[in-house]
Amino acid sequence: MSTSKGPTLPRFAILVAGGSGTRMGADRPKQFMELLGEPVLLHTLRRFTESVLQVQQCVVVLPANQFTTWHQLCAQHGISIPHTVVAGGVTRWASVRNGLKFLSEPTEGIVAVHDGVRPLASTTIIENTYAAAAEHGAAIAAVAPKDSVRGLSKEGSYAMDRSRLRLVQTPQCFELNLLRRAYELPELPTFTDDASVVEDLHTIHLVAGDYSNIKITTPEDLVLAEALMRARQTAD
Amino acid sequence: MSTSKGPTLPRFAILVAGGSGTRMGADRPKQFMELLGEPVLLHTLRRFTESVLQVQQCVVVLPANQFTTWHQLCAQHGISIPHTVVAGGVTRWASVRNGLKFLSEPTEGIVAVHDGVRPLASTTIIENTYAAAAEHGAAIAAVAPKDSVRGLSKEGSYAMDRSRLRLVQTPQCFELNLLRRAYELPELPTFTDDASVVEDLHTIHLVAGDYSNIKITTPEDLVLAEALMRARQTAD
Repeated sequence: MSTSKGPTLPRFAILVAGGSGTRMGADRPKQFMELLGEPVLLHTLRRFTESVLQVQQCVVVLPANQFTTWHQLCAQHGISIPHTVVAGGVTRWASVRNGLKFLSEPTEGIVAVHDGVRPLASTTIIENTYAAAAEHGAAIAAVAPKDSVRGLSKEGSYAMDRSRLRLVQTPQCFELNLLRRAYELPELPTFTDDASVVEDLHTIHLVAGDYSNIKITTPEDLVLAEALMRARQTAD
Repeated sequence: MSTSKGPTLPRFAILVAGGSGTRMGADRPKQFMELLGEPVLLHTLRRFTESVLQVQQCVVVLPANQFTTWHQLCAQHGISIPHTVVAGGVTRWASVRNGLKFLSEPTEGIVAVHDGVRPLASTTIIENTYAAAAEHGAAIAAVAPKDSVRGLSKEGSYAMDRSRLRLVQTPQCFELNLLRRAYELPELPTFTDDASVVEDLHTIHLVAGDYSNIKITTPEDLVLAEALMRARQTAD
């Protein structure tokens, strides 16, 4: 008889980092840029390997030509966090599909797909999204827009009701076999995240994300991430 | 004969700061919180009084019970930037309407309405929005969402095409008499910004905003704003 409150289904994570570095105008892909002295992707990997989350396997999807750099960075920072490195595809969709294949054949479980460049996802958000997916089959972190939202029209633009909209973040968690079935279907140009891949098969449940769970895509984002991370360290 | 390239229409600005401080859980309204040692609203006022913009009159709309604090803060920081302080109303709509009444009766011109808690609006964005409003009658700063966007439905949520959506910022600039006419109409619950007040009368032109032009509404935003401002000072 156990009173431990661990997750009832095995948990897996796929961290997708496809950036080539060209968009940031930097000398290296954004997943390798330094955040408080460590690569962004390393911070993200740490988030998912917090022992309280009990994630069994972490797959990191990277462009094949970045494997060497990643292994060098891990060595340089003395990192021994177990994870599987998998080669990405041409699109995000292809990268996640590749990652899925490398999960060590579990028959069931919950898999989180997460942007490698969202290093600020909190343990709470990750836990809540896994738990909601265990209950509902598919759950993603999202926040309400803080700003007014307008739709573009031929004539100009029109106001939309922002209370009916959500900005999507990751993690996005799915019952493993549901995500596998979704990735057996052909790729569509409308796929921007895993929720859009799954939504024809299953309702997408939304979990409260966090405004600080930012995706690092511009140089300013790196400044913001560093400030947020420092503020968190001070608060701890 | 002059070759100066100043704006052809007089320019005005209404800075709206209605915060009571309760949402931030702070001891003071967010417009008075300190950002690099100076109140947020003071930074914002500085942005609009940059001489290159040639703004003729700046109206600051504040809750009447904050006038004393504001004047004390201005004195304390040795500020002598000319501006008109006007009492706000119950809603943002009522506050902007009050501000409009206090413009010193110009017959024509372009008026910018701006959130008092967006202290990072760059001179470029402000200039571009004034210029676009001079050309098109109504122009607002907006950015494309970086994240995937979902709409809420009875059953759950559905993917939307984010390339057809824009997150609205301020400044929002309007031909003065257009904005006056819009504010003569009754208030609607759907008004979330000035573009929504004006849009039944005139097409809203969108100008490229800036992701760093954030609105300070949460404690994290203050951290971000400070980091962004520091990064700018270093870049200068």
